[in-house]
Amino acid sequence: MDDLSTPNLNNAENTAIDPAAPEASVLEMNPHDLATQLVGKLCHDFISPAGAIISGLDLLEDPSAQDMRQEALNLISASAKKMVTLVHFARVAFGAASTSEAFSGAQLEKILGDMFTTMRAELDFAIPSDMLFQKPAARALLNLGLLAGNSLPTGGKATLTAMAGDDGLTLTADAAGPRARLKAEAIEGLKGLPLGDGLNGQWIQPHWLWSTVHEAGGTLDFTAETDHLVLTVKLPG
Amino acid sequence: MDDLSTPNLNNAENTAIDPAAPEASVLEMNPHDLATQLVGKLCHDFISPAGAIISGLDLLEDPSAQDMRQEALNLISASAKKMVTLVHFARVAFGAASTSEAFSGAQLEKILGDMFTTMRAELDFAIPSDMLFQKPAARALLNLGLLAGNSLPTGGKATLTAMAGDDGLTLTADAAGPRARLKAEAIEGLKGLPLGDGLNGQWIQPHWLWSTVHEAGGTLDFTAETDHLVLTVKLPG
Repeated sequence: MDDLSTPNLNNAENTAIDPAAPEASVLEMNPHDLATQLVGKLCHDFISPAGAIISGLDLLEDPSAQDMRQEALNLISASAKKMVTLVHFARVAFGAASTSEAFSGAQLEKILGDMFTTMRAELDFAIPSDMLFQKPAARALLNLGLLAGNSLPTGGKATLTAMAGDDGLTLTADAAGPRARLKAEAIEGLKGLPLGDGLNGQWIQPHWLWSTVHEAGGTLDFTAETDHLVLTVKLPG
Repeated sequence: MDDLSTPNLNNAENTAIDPAAPEASVLEMNPHDLATQLVGKLCHDFISPAGAIISGLDLLEDPSAQDMRQEALNLISASAKKMVTLVHFARVAFGAASTSEAFSGAQLEKILGDMFTTMRAELDFAIPSDMLFQKPAARALLNLGLLAGNSLPTGGKATLTAMAGDDGLTLTADAAGPRARLKAEAIEGLKGLPLGDGLNGQWIQPHWLWSTVHEAGGTLDFTAETDHLVLTVKLPG
């Protein structure tokens, strides 16, 4: 995740994106590819804790490493919790969580807060716990939050807000901290553009956010300044 | 998985499906929905072993259950192996496994064989270990094999074959065993039809197989007789 080869976007940039009226160059991705890219990302995320659990078990069963038993159990425990966190996040952020049609602020804060325990940035979830989010809005909010957290590789604070008005719902993610930035691939993804030379793993999640907003008939904007990013999603009411 | 409420397809049925020329009623699924349904299925598959690992750890740490330590470790170990198996399968069957462009018969037999250890049916992978499969063919073969295995809820034998000819590649899955059947949802999925009244979890994987074949410009057929199913995929050369 922490590839520092992409330059910071430290020139002020203000980009308005209207996913409902895409530019000619916007990606027309076929359904199959969007799904395979997303599943590829999930498998990549899941294999690391799954492998760590296996390593922990191997260590536990190694007669010559009996002094490492507690470390092995700690590794297994931390990895299993990470796995559950990733699955719970993925269900709502990427999947059709079919058991719920709406999510409360409190539910989304728990799901996202657990994800932030795996990242360096701090989460400030400045949204009322009883505010209700329909599925597309819940999905957009979790993806906004994840992107804000991932844009703070050395730490900082990601603040999420939500405001319901006559013209719909506005969600914002404010990421403030040293080296806060969106990688080139992430910007391509957020604009609905195809992946250029970069890494698919950096592109697909921002692209998924774009796709979620696009699907819901909303708009997506971001501003990038030195050590400070603001992402704004507007969804129709 | 073992919902027996759907009647067996015990009347002979022979259905030819040409995904390249779909009927008017064939589902036009938007990219977003295909991805969310597929991710939803994966999360459903993953959460069970992840939860079992957590349960095993809880048992391990329970001072009143010290006589259950070995059972707890066995549960953790079996669940972690299942998790790794599911992820490895998903990477190739559902995801963009970007590290490999082609897979050998031996590689695919290993991935599918591991999945069959979680099912009742036996796998007969009657394909040369050195035969090479490009990504779409590998994906179709794994999905064919999984569907054949899932169509044998009380056990039986799933035989996979592959034959390369001048006009392309023919893959077959032969599922023979008591109660061998495709559920109504699975048939809808295989025909590229939208899900009717049934369970999404029974529909999405067959639909994904249809989508994979459709995407590759191939055709998909199946015959269903008492205790015997044959699925055939033809992919262009």
